[in-house]
Amino acid sequence: MYKLVLIRHGESTWNLENRFTGWTDVDLTPTGIEQAKNAGRLLRSEGWDFDLAYTSVLKRATRTLWHCLDELDRTWLPVVHSWRLNERHYGALQGLNKAETAKKFGDEQVLLWRRSYDVPPPALDPNDPRCERGDVRYAKLAPGQVPLTECLKDTVARVLPFWNESMAPAIKAGKRLVVAAHGNSIRALVKYLDGISDGDIVGLNIPNGIPLVYELDAGLRPIRHYYLGDEAAARAAAAAVASQGKG
Amino acid sequence: MYKLVLIRHGESTWNLENRFTGWTDVDLTPTGIEQAKNAGRLLRSEGWDFDLAYTSVLKRATRTLWHCLDELDRTWLPVVHSWRLNERHYGALQGLNKAETAKKFGDEQVLLWRRSYDVPPPALDPNDPRCERGDVRYAKLAPGQVPLTECLKDTVARVLPFWNESMAPAIKAGKRLVVAAHGNSIRALVKYLDGISDGDIVGLNIPNGIPLVYELDAGLRPIRHYYLGDEAAARAAAAAVASQGKG
Repeated sequence: MYKLVLIRHGESTWNLENRFTGWTDVDLTPTGIEQAKNAGRLLRSEGWDFDLAYTSVLKRATRTLWHCLDELDRTWLPVVHSWRLNERHYGALQGLNKAETAKKFGDEQVLLWRRSYDVPPPALDPNDPRCERGDVRYAKLAPGQVPLTECLKDTVARVLPFWNESMAPAIKAGKRLVVAAHGNSIRALVKYLDGISDGDIVGLNIPNGIPLVYELDAGLRPIRHYYLGDEAAARAAAAAVASQGKG
Repeated sequence: MYKLVLIRHGESTWNLENRFTGWTDVDLTPTGIEQAKNAGRLLRSEGWDFDLAYTSVLKRATRTLWHCLDELDRTWLPVVHSWRLNERHYGALQGLNKAETAKKFGDEQVLLWRRSYDVPPPALDPNDPRCERGDVRYAKLAPGQVPLTECLKDTVARVLPFWNESMAPAIKAGKRLVVAAHGNSIRALVKYLDGISDGDIVGLNIPNGIPLVYELDAGLRPIRHYYLGDEAAARAAAAAVASQGKG
């Protein structure tokens, strides 16, 4: 049996400001740093250990990972960064306040952008200064690979090749993986692993900074999953994620 | 022409306590953190950028690198950790106070251990709790590869294969490398690159947290090298390293 640990980054400055973040590279808040350290302390106190770490190319996930590795005394662990683990791209909404956007477009429209499986928000203009196509960390991608917007379906489509080509083989090779990523890249993995329908994934929320453990069989099919630590706290944190952006 | 940047970690807790450190995994002091950040800021202010980072498996070097990458806004850069970039192993002296050791064994003996090219300090007993052979980060090494003591010649002997097999090919492939390492693993590289004699390397000191730039020709032979920032400060810092451990 294999085990896989997924951690959504701690609170970011734009979580706190209630803004759509997506691929914008904002940092953790002091609360987010504390959440990240707590995740590491929890893993350590329960005797978890890892051989390999995965994260995105966004600093809120990388820093969450670094704090976890630090608490685990595993600062020397190899780390694989991939843009495929980035947060869902939020298109032209990136940087906008969620509540203001709801006022402007209506709760229903924003909920559709936030929570529908296949309706992406309005696309970024490639000439918009917010567009990431000139960012050096994406320089080796084909231009079309750097999204201008994404629905969760798009995120799933770019996360899964990375799971299949890098993460799954590493797990099968016996590596114990810890993954520090984002709400929607983790939802993409969870949807795939648990075979959650397009409709049901909409109601699934990932709390910040609470390690989510998947126990997998030899074929990497989930046996069970659970949050480490206080389960009621994890549920409350997930509910708080769900309520963001309401008028 | 290629460029290579070498950075010795910032001040560690045992630098401050004037203790022999070697492979002991002590952390940076607040001053060391500041030195690391300053190195990153200096690199950024002078427009340096990198494709690949190297460091040891010791946290004072890794953390120095992380602070540099953070200041450079390159937290997503791939990082290669290798035990071959570790500090020189200090054998049975690890943990001992340099001044007390000098009082006990005499200045001359300690200077010989610290500065001779081929006289190692007394070896650690494999059963000594300080011995690193049970450390998980070295679990894949052959037992004989985890040293019980090292002279600089031994350090050179285990750094160079890594230079030849990993770092040099990466540079020739066009990768711009930043290397956060240790006084003696950097001296090993410098000795090799500049063809410094066994006798002369003894007098060469590497200051903490000041980026050392090597400009290399197509065959990776050095054209010139220099410290970034205030050269007088770099010289003074190197002189301070040289004076450690004196009675």
